[in-house]
Amino acid sequence: MPKLEFVFDFASPNAYYSYRALPSILQRTGAELKIIPVLLGGLFKITGNQAPFIAFGDVKGKLEYDMLESKRFQHKHGINDFVFNSHFPMNTIMIMRGLAAAVELDVETDYVESVLSAMWEQGKKMDDPEVVMDVWREAGLDADAIAGLIQTDAVKEALKLNTQAMADRGSFGVPTFYVGSEMFFGKERLGQVEEELLNFAT
Amino acid sequence: MPKLEFVFDFASPNAYYSYRALPSILQRTGAELKIIPVLLGGLFKITGNQAPFIAFGDVKGKLEYDMLESKRFQHKHGINDFVFNSHFPMNTIMIMRGLAAAVELDVETDYVESVLSAMWEQGKKMDDPEVVMDVWREAGLDADAIAGLIQTDAVKEALKLNTQAMADRGSFGVPTFYVGSEMFFGKERLGQVEEELLNFAT
Repeated sequence: MPKLEFVFDFASPNAYYSYRALPSILQRTGAELKIIPVLLGGLFKITGNQAPFIAFGDVKGKLEYDMLESKRFQHKHGINDFVFNSHFPMNTIMIMRGLAAAVELDVETDYVESVLSAMWEQGKKMDDPEVVMDVWREAGLDADAIAGLIQTDAVKEALKLNTQAMADRGSFGVPTFYVGSEMFFGKERLGQVEEELLNFAT
Repeated sequence: MPKLEFVFDFASPNAYYSYRALPSILQRTGAELKIIPVLLGGLFKITGNQAPFIAFGDVKGKLEYDMLESKRFQHKHGINDFVFNSHFPMNTIMIMRGLAAAVELDVETDYVESVLSAMWEQGKKMDDPEVVMDVWREAGLDADAIAGLIQTDAVKEALKLNTQAMADRGSFGVPTFYVGSEMFFGKERLGQVEEELLNFAT
Protein backbone atom coordinates (compact mmCIF):
# COMPACT_ATOMS: atom_id res chain seq x y z
CA MET A 1 0.00 0.00 0.00
CA PRO A 2 1.63 3.28 -1.09
CA LYS A 3 1.84 6.05 1.47
CA LEU A 4 0.95 9.70 0.84
CA GLU A 5 2.53 12.11 3.32
CA PHE A 6 0.78 15.47 3.57
CA VAL A 7 2.69 18.35 5.21
CA PHE A 8 -0.22 20.17 6.77
CA ASP A 9 -1.33 23.29 8.63
CA PHE A 10 -4.96 24.41 8.96
CA ALA A 11 -3.78 27.95 8.19
CA SER A 12 -3.65 27.29 4.45
CA PRO A 13 -6.82 27.37 2.33
CA ASN A 14 -4.92 25.31 -0.22
CA ALA A 15 -4.44 22.63 2.45
CA TYR A 16 -8.22 22.64 2.90
CA TYR A 17 -8.87 22.30 -0.84
CA SER A 18 -6.34 19.52 -1.10
CA TYR A 19 -7.77 17.61 1.86
CA ARG A 20 -11.23 17.77 0.29
CA ALA A 21 -9.85 16.45 -3.01
CA LEU A 22 -7.94 13.57 -1.41
CA PRO A 23 -10.64 10.94 -0.73
CA SER A 24 -11.14 10.07 -4.40
CA ILE A 25 -7.37 10.04 -5.01
CA LEU A 26 -6.83 7.72 -2.05
CA GLN A 27 -9.63 5.49 -3.30
CA ARG A 28 -8.28 5.27 -6.85
CA THR A 29 -4.72 4.60 -5.72
CA GLY A 30 -5.33 2.56 -2.59
CA ALA A 31 -2.88 4.86 -0.83
CA GLU A 32 -2.74 5.45 2.88
CA LEU A 33 -2.74 9.08 4.07
CA LYS A 34 -0.29 10.27 6.69
CA ILE A 35 -0.76 13.86 7.83
CA ILE A 36 2.38 15.57 9.09
CA PRO A 37 1.39 18.52 11.31
CA VAL A 38 3.75 21.48 10.96
CA LEU A 39 3.62 25.17 11.78
CA LEU A 40 3.44 27.01 8.48
CA GLY A 41 4.73 30.17 10.16
CA GLY A 42 7.72 28.21 11.40
CA LEU A 43 8.35 26.74 7.97
CA PHE A 44 8.26 30.25 6.48
CA LYS A 45 10.70 31.48 9.12
CA ILE A 46 13.17 28.63 8.55
CA THR A 47 13.08 28.88 4.75
CA GLY A 48 12.62 32.63 4.32
CA ASN A 49 9.33 32.09 2.52
CA GLN A 50 6.12 34.07 3.02
CA ALA A 51 2.41 33.67 2.39
CA PRO A 52 1.23 34.32 -1.19
CA PHE A 53 -1.07 37.15 -0.06
CA ILE A 54 2.05 38.94 1.23
CA ALA A 55 4.53 37.90 -1.47
CA PHE A 56 2.16 38.75 -4.32
CA GLY A 57 -0.04 41.37 -2.66
CA ASP A 58 1.36 44.13 -4.85
CA VAL A 59 1.46 42.18 -8.12
CA LYS A 60 -1.40 43.31 -10.33
CA GLY A 61 -3.56 40.36 -11.33
CA LYS A 62 -1.70 37.63 -9.42
CA LEU A 63 -4.00 37.11 -6.44
CA GLU A 64 -7.05 37.45 -8.67
CA TYR A 65 -5.63 34.67 -10.84
CA ASP A 66 -4.88 32.49 -7.78
CA MET A 67 -8.50 32.96 -6.73
CA LEU A 68 -9.68 31.96 -10.20
CA GLU A 69 -7.62 28.77 -9.97
CA SER A 70 -9.06 28.09 -6.51
CA LYS A 71 -12.57 28.39 -7.94
CA ARG A 72 -11.65 26.07 -10.81
CA PHE A 73 -10.23 23.58 -8.32
CA GLN A 74 -13.38 23.71 -6.19
CA HIS A 75 -15.54 23.19 -9.26
CA LYS A 76 -13.43 20.29 -10.54
CA HIS A 77 -13.44 18.47 -7.21
CA GLY A 78 -17.03 19.21 -6.21
CA ILE A 79 -16.03 21.36 -3.24
CA ASN A 80 -19.12 23.40 -2.48
CA ASP A 81 -18.83 24.50 1.13
CA PHE A 82 -15.74 26.71 1.13
CA VAL A 83 -16.10 30.15 2.69
CA PHE A 84 -13.11 32.44 2.95
CA ASN A 85 -12.56 33.05 6.66
CA SER A 86 -12.90 36.74 7.48
CA HIS A 87 -10.46 36.29 10.40
CA PHE A 88 -7.66 35.15 8.05
CA PRO A 89 -4.75 35.06 8.70
CA MET A 90 -4.98 33.41 12.10
CA ASN A 91 -2.36 32.00 14.42
CA THR A 92 -2.95 28.23 14.27
CA ILE A 93 -0.64 27.13 17.05
CA MET A 94 -3.45 25.96 19.36
CA ILE A 95 -5.32 23.95 16.72
CA MET A 96 -2.06 22.54 15.34
CA ARG A 97 -0.92 21.46 18.81
CA GLY A 98 -4.42 20.03 19.13
CA LEU A 99 -3.81 18.00 15.98
CA ALA A 100 -0.59 16.60 17.41
CA ALA A 101 -2.58 15.72 20.54
CA ALA A 102 -5.38 14.16 18.47
CA VAL A 103 -2.81 11.90 16.80
CA GLU A 104 -1.78 10.65 20.26
CA LEU A 105 -5.44 10.12 21.22
CA ASP A 106 -6.08 8.32 17.92
CA VAL A 107 -8.88 10.71 16.91
CA GLU A 108 -7.00 12.39 14.08
CA THR A 109 -9.62 11.97 11.34
CA ASP A 110 -12.49 13.41 13.39
CA TYR A 111 -10.24 16.20 14.62
CA VAL A 112 -9.10 17.26 11.15
CA GLU A 113 -12.62 17.13 9.77
CA SER A 114 -14.16 19.24 12.52
CA VAL A 115 -11.39 21.85 12.68
CA LEU A 116 -11.09 22.20 8.89
CA SER A 117 -14.84 22.64 8.63
CA ALA A 118 -14.89 25.25 11.42
CA MET A 119 -11.99 27.10 9.80
CA TRP A 120 -12.84 27.00 6.10
CA GLU A 121 -16.58 26.30 5.92
CA GLN A 122 -18.04 27.94 9.01
CA GLY A 123 -15.68 30.92 9.22
CA LYS A 124 -14.97 30.55 12.93
CA LYS A 125 -12.24 32.48 14.74
CA MET A 126 -9.94 29.55 15.34
CA ASP A 127 -7.28 31.43 17.26
CA ASP A 128 -9.78 32.07 20.07
CA PRO A 129 -9.41 29.32 22.72
CA GLU A 130 -13.08 29.39 23.71
CA VAL A 131 -14.24 29.07 20.12
CA VAL A 132 -11.78 26.22 19.57
CA MET A 133 -12.87 24.35 22.70
CA ASP A 134 -16.49 24.62 21.57
CA VAL A 135 -15.61 23.24 18.13
CA TRP A 136 -13.83 20.29 19.73
CA ARG A 137 -16.77 19.60 22.08
CA GLU A 138 -19.38 19.86 19.35
CA ALA A 139 -17.41 17.34 17.31
CA GLY A 140 -17.65 14.88 20.18
CA LEU A 141 -13.90 15.08 20.88
CA ASP A 142 -12.54 14.97 24.43
CA ALA A 143 -11.79 18.69 24.54
CA ASP A 144 -10.39 18.61 28.06
CA ALA A 145 -7.98 15.80 27.25
CA ILE A 146 -6.77 17.64 24.14
CA ALA A 147 -6.49 20.93 26.06
CA GLY A 148 -4.37 19.14 28.63
CA LEU A 149 -2.10 17.49 26.09
CA ILE A 150 -1.36 20.69 24.17
CA GLN A 151 0.27 22.09 27.32
CA THR A 152 2.81 19.28 27.39
CA ASP A 153 6.35 19.65 26.14
CA ALA A 154 5.96 16.44 24.15
CA VAL A 155 3.21 17.90 21.94
CA LYS A 156 4.88 21.31 21.63
CA GLU A 157 8.17 19.71 20.67
CA ALA A 158 6.59 17.26 18.21
CA LEU A 159 5.30 20.14 16.14
CA LYS A 160 8.63 21.98 16.17
CA LEU A 161 10.54 18.85 15.27
CA ASN A 162 8.15 18.06 12.39
CA THR A 163 8.52 21.58 11.05
CA GLN A 164 12.31 21.48 11.10
CA ALA A 165 12.36 17.95 9.67
CA MET A 166 10.14 18.92 6.74
CA ALA A 167 12.23 22.03 6.02
CA ASP A 168 15.31 19.80 6.02
CA ARG A 169 13.48 17.49 3.60
CA GLY A 170 12.85 20.36 1.16
CA SER A 171 9.44 21.72 2.19
CA PHE A 172 8.99 25.49 2.06
CA GLY A 173 5.19 25.72 2.26
CA VAL A 174 1.84 24.00 2.63
CA PRO A 175 0.40 21.85 1.13
CA THR A 176 3.47 19.74 0.40
CA PHE A 177 3.17 16.06 -0.47
CA TYR A 178 5.66 13.22 -0.45
CA VAL A 179 5.35 9.86 -2.16
CA GLY A 180 8.47 8.09 -0.99
CA SER A 181 11.28 10.51 -1.75
CA GLU A 182 9.35 12.44 -4.41
CA MET A 183 8.14 15.86 -3.29
CA PHE A 184 5.22 17.85 -4.72
CA PHE A 185 4.19 21.36 -3.69
CA GLY A 186 0.74 22.86 -4.13
CA LYS A 187 -2.76 21.68 -4.89
CA GLU A 188 -2.02 21.88 -8.63
CA ARG A 189 0.34 18.91 -8.24
CA LEU A 190 -2.31 16.45 -7.07
CA GLY A 191 -2.57 14.99 -10.57
CA GLN A 192 1.15 14.24 -10.47
CA VAL A 193 0.79 12.93 -6.91
CA GLU A 194 -1.85 10.48 -8.12
CA GLU A 195 0.34 9.32 -11.01
CA GLU A 196 3.24 8.78 -8.61
CA LEU A 197 1.05 6.80 -6.21
CA LEU A 198 -0.10 4.60 -9.11
CA ASN A 199 3.50 4.08 -10.26
CA PHE A 200 4.46 3.27 -6.71
CA ALA A 201 1.73 0.64 -6.45
CA THR A 202 2.80 -1.25 -9.58
CA MET B 1 -11.19 25.51 -34.78
CA PRO B 2 -10.37 26.64 -31.24
CA LYS B 3 -7.63 29.21 -30.84
CA LEU B 4 -4.82 29.06 -28.29
CA GLU B 5 -3.22 32.43 -27.56
CA PHE B 6 0.27 32.21 -26.06
CA VAL B 7 1.66 35.35 -24.36
CA PHE B 8 5.32 34.87 -25.16
CA ASP B 9 8.85 36.14 -24.58
CA PHE B 10 12.01 34.16 -25.40
CA ALA B 11 13.39 35.28 -22.02
CA SER B 12 11.45 32.62 -20.13
CA PRO B 13 12.67 29.02 -19.98
CA ASN B 14 9.11 28.07 -19.10
CA ALA B 15 7.99 29.60 -22.41
CA TYR B 16 10.52 27.34 -24.12
CA TYR B 17 9.29 24.23 -22.29
CA SER B 18 5.70 25.11 -23.09
CA TYR B 19 6.41 25.72 -26.77
CA ARG B 20 8.07 22.31 -27.02
CA ALA B 21 5.06 20.65 -25.36
CA LEU B 22 2.51 22.38 -27.58
CA PRO B 23 2.66 20.37 -30.85
CA SER B 24 0.98 17.28 -29.37
CA ILE B 25 -1.62 19.42 -27.59
CA LEU B 26 -2.42 21.26 -30.83
CA GLN B 27 -2.65 17.96 -32.64
CA ARG B 28 -5.00 16.37 -30.09
CA THR B 29 -7.26 19.44 -29.89
CA GLY B 30 -7.09 20.69 -33.46
CA ALA B 31 -6.37 24.12 -32.04
CA GLU B 32 -4.64 26.94 -33.87
CA LEU B 33 -1.71 28.62 -32.11
CA LYS B 34 -1.43 32.39 -31.97
CA ILE B 35 1.74 33.71 -30.39
CA ILE B 36 1.42 37.15 -28.79
CA PRO B 37 4.91 38.70 -28.49
CA VAL B 38 5.33 40.79 -25.33
CA LEU B 39 8.24 42.14 -23.34
CA LEU B 40 8.37 40.18 -20.11
CA GLY B 41 10.37 42.97 -18.48
CA GLY B 42 7.63 45.42 -19.46
CA LEU B 43 4.94 43.12 -18.13
CA PHE B 44 6.82 42.88 -14.83
CA LYS B 45 7.14 46.65 -14.68
CA ILE B 46 3.44 47.26 -15.34
CA THR B 47 2.22 44.64 -12.86
CA GLY B 48 4.91 44.92 -10.18
CA ASN B 49 5.90 41.30 -10.70
CA GLN B 50 9.45 39.94 -10.86
CA ALA B 51 11.26 36.88 -12.16
CA PRO B 52 11.09 33.76 -9.96
CA PHE B 53 14.87 33.64 -9.59
CA ILE B 54 14.65 37.09 -7.96
CA ALA B 55 11.37 36.68 -6.05
CA PHE B 56 12.35 33.30 -4.61
CA GLY B 57 16.13 33.57 -4.68
CA ASP B 58 16.31 33.67 -0.88
CA VAL B 59 13.67 31.02 -0.17
CA LYS B 60 15.37 27.80 0.89
CA GLY B 61 14.33 24.94 -1.35
CA LYS B 62 12.03 26.88 -3.71
CA LEU B 63 14.24 27.24 -6.78
CA GLU B 64 15.52 23.68 -6.34
CA TYR B 65 11.91 22.51 -6.37
CA ASP B 66 11.12 24.59 -9.46
CA MET B 67 14.11 22.96 -11.16
CA LEU B 68 12.84 19.52 -10.16
CA GLU B 69 9.46 20.34 -11.72
CA SER B 70 11.20 21.57 -14.87
CA LYS B 71 13.05 18.28 -15.12
CA ARG B 72 9.80 16.34 -14.59
CA PHE B 73 8.16 18.45 -17.32
CA GLN B 74 11.02 17.78 -19.73
CA HIS B 75 10.85 14.07 -19.01
CA LYS B 76 7.06 13.92 -19.42
CA HIS B 77 7.10 15.78 -22.73
CA GLY B 78 10.22 14.20 -24.21
CA ILE B 79 12.18 17.44 -24.19
CA ASN B 80 15.80 16.34 -24.44
CA ASP B 81 17.74 19.30 -25.81
CA PHE B 82 17.31 21.94 -23.11
CA VAL B 83 20.49 23.60 -21.84
CA PHE B 84 20.30 26.37 -19.28
CA ASN B 85 21.77 29.45 -20.94
CA SER B 86 24.82 30.66 -19.03
CA HIS B 87 24.11 34.23 -20.20
CA PHE B 88 20.69 34.26 -18.48
CA PRO B 89 19.08 36.69 -17.80
CA MET B 90 19.38 38.47 -21.14
CA ASN B 91 17.66 41.52 -22.55
CA THR B 92 15.39 40.10 -25.27
CA ILE B 93 14.23 43.34 -26.86
CA MET B 94 16.08 42.72 -30.16
CA ILE B 95 14.85 39.16 -30.63
CA MET B 96 11.33 40.09 -29.51
CA ARG B 97 11.19 42.99 -31.95
CA GLY B 98 12.52 40.49 -34.46
CA LEU B 99 9.55 38.24 -33.68
CA ALA B 100 7.13 41.09 -34.30
CA ALA B 101 8.95 41.69 -37.59
CA ALA B 102 8.84 37.98 -38.46
CA VAL B 103 5.07 38.02 -38.01
CA GLU B 104 4.89 40.83 -40.60
CA LEU B 105 7.15 38.87 -42.95
CA ASP B 106 5.08 35.72 -42.39
CA VAL B 107 8.08 33.68 -41.21
CA GLU B 108 6.99 33.42 -37.59
CA THR B 109 7.30 29.64 -37.20
CA ASP B 110 10.85 29.43 -38.57
CA TYR B 111 11.82 32.48 -36.55
CA VAL B 112 10.52 31.13 -33.24
CA GLU B 113 12.09 27.73 -33.84
CA SER B 114 15.54 29.09 -34.65
CA VAL B 115 15.67 31.72 -31.91
CA LEU B 116 14.29 29.40 -29.21
CA SER B 117 16.81 26.77 -30.17
CA ALA B 118 19.68 29.28 -30.12
CA MET B 119 18.55 30.58 -26.73
CA TRP B 120 17.60 27.42 -24.85
CA GLU B 121 19.38 24.58 -26.66
CA GLN B 122 22.58 26.11 -28.00
CA GLY B 123 23.23 28.58 -25.17
CA LYS B 124 23.95 31.53 -27.45
CA LYS B 125 24.27 35.10 -26.20
CA MET B 126 21.06 36.40 -27.68
CA ASP B 127 21.41 39.99 -26.56
CA ASP B 128 24.47 40.37 -28.81
CA PRO B 129 23.36 41.80 -32.19
CA GLU B 130 26.08 39.97 -34.16
CA VAL B 131 25.20 36.63 -32.60
CA VAL B 132 21.52 37.26 -33.29
CA MET B 133 22.11 38.22 -36.93
CA ASP B 134 24.14 35.02 -37.40
CA VAL B 135 21.32 32.94 -35.91
CA TRP B 136 18.82 34.54 -38.25
CA ARG B 137 21.05 33.99 -41.27
CA GLU B 138 21.82 30.38 -40.42
CA ALA B 139 18.08 29.72 -40.14
CA GLY B 140 17.64 30.96 -43.71
CA LEU B 141 15.73 34.03 -42.57
CA ASP B 142 16.14 37.38 -44.31
CA ALA B 143 18.26 38.86 -41.53
CA ASP B 144 18.66 42.23 -43.22
CA ALA B 145 14.93 42.65 -43.73
CA ILE B 146 14.26 41.78 -40.09
CA ALA B 147 17.06 44.07 -38.90
CA GLY B 148 15.47 46.87 -40.91
CA LEU B 149 11.96 46.27 -39.61
CA ILE B 150 12.98 46.22 -35.95
CA GLN B 151 14.11 49.84 -36.29
CA THR B 152 10.63 50.95 -37.30
CA ASP B 153 8.20 52.59 -34.94
CA ALA B 154 5.49 50.18 -36.06
CA VAL B 155 7.37 47.15 -34.75
CA LYS B 156 8.55 48.86 -31.57
CA GLU B 157 5.04 50.08 -30.83
CA ALA B 158 3.41 46.73 -31.61
CA LEU B 159 5.42 45.10 -28.86
CA LYS B 160 4.61 47.83 -26.33
CA LEU B 161 0.92 47.77 -27.20
CA ASN B 162 0.78 43.96 -26.89
CA THR B 163 2.46 44.14 -23.50
CA GLN B 164 0.04 46.73 -22.16
CA ALA B 165 -2.95 44.93 -23.68
CA MET B 166 -2.00 41.63 -22.06
CA ALA B 167 -1.44 43.31 -18.68
CA ASP B 168 -4.90 44.87 -19.03
CA ARG B 169 -6.25 41.40 -19.83
CA GLY B 170 -4.83 39.98 -16.59
CA SER B 171 -1.37 38.67 -17.59
CA PHE B 172 1.44 39.18 -15.09
CA GLY B 173 4.03 36.79 -16.50
CA VAL B 174 5.09 34.35 -19.20
CA PRO B 175 3.94 31.79 -20.29
CA THR B 176 0.30 32.88 -20.13
CA PHE B 177 -2.35 31.21 -22.24
CA TYR B 178 -5.84 32.24 -23.27
CA VAL B 179 -8.60 30.05 -24.64
CA GLY B 180 -11.33 32.55 -25.38
CA SER B 181 -11.68 34.54 -22.18
CA GLU B 182 -10.17 31.85 -19.95
CA MET B 183 -6.65 32.62 -18.74
CA PHE B 184 -4.02 30.11 -17.62
CA PHE B 185 -0.59 30.95 -16.22
CA GLY B 186 2.42 28.65 -16.22
CA LYS B 187 3.50 25.45 -17.90
CA GLU B 188 1.76 23.43 -15.17
CA ARG B 189 -1.58 24.61 -16.56
CA LEU B 190 -1.16 23.01 -20.00
CA GLY B 191 -3.33 20.06 -18.93
CA GLN B 192 -6.13 22.49 -18.10
CA VAL B 193 -5.45 24.39 -21.34
CA GLU B 194 -5.93 21.16 -23.29
CA GLU B 195 -9.21 20.38 -21.45
CA GLU B 196 -10.46 23.89 -22.20
CA LEU B 197 -9.55 23.57 -25.88
CA LEU B 198 -11.42 20.26 -26.03
CA ASN B 199 -14.46 21.79 -24.31
CA PHE B 200 -14.27 24.69 -26.69
CA ALA B 201 -14.28 22.36 -29.68
CA THR B 202 -17.44 20.50 -28.64
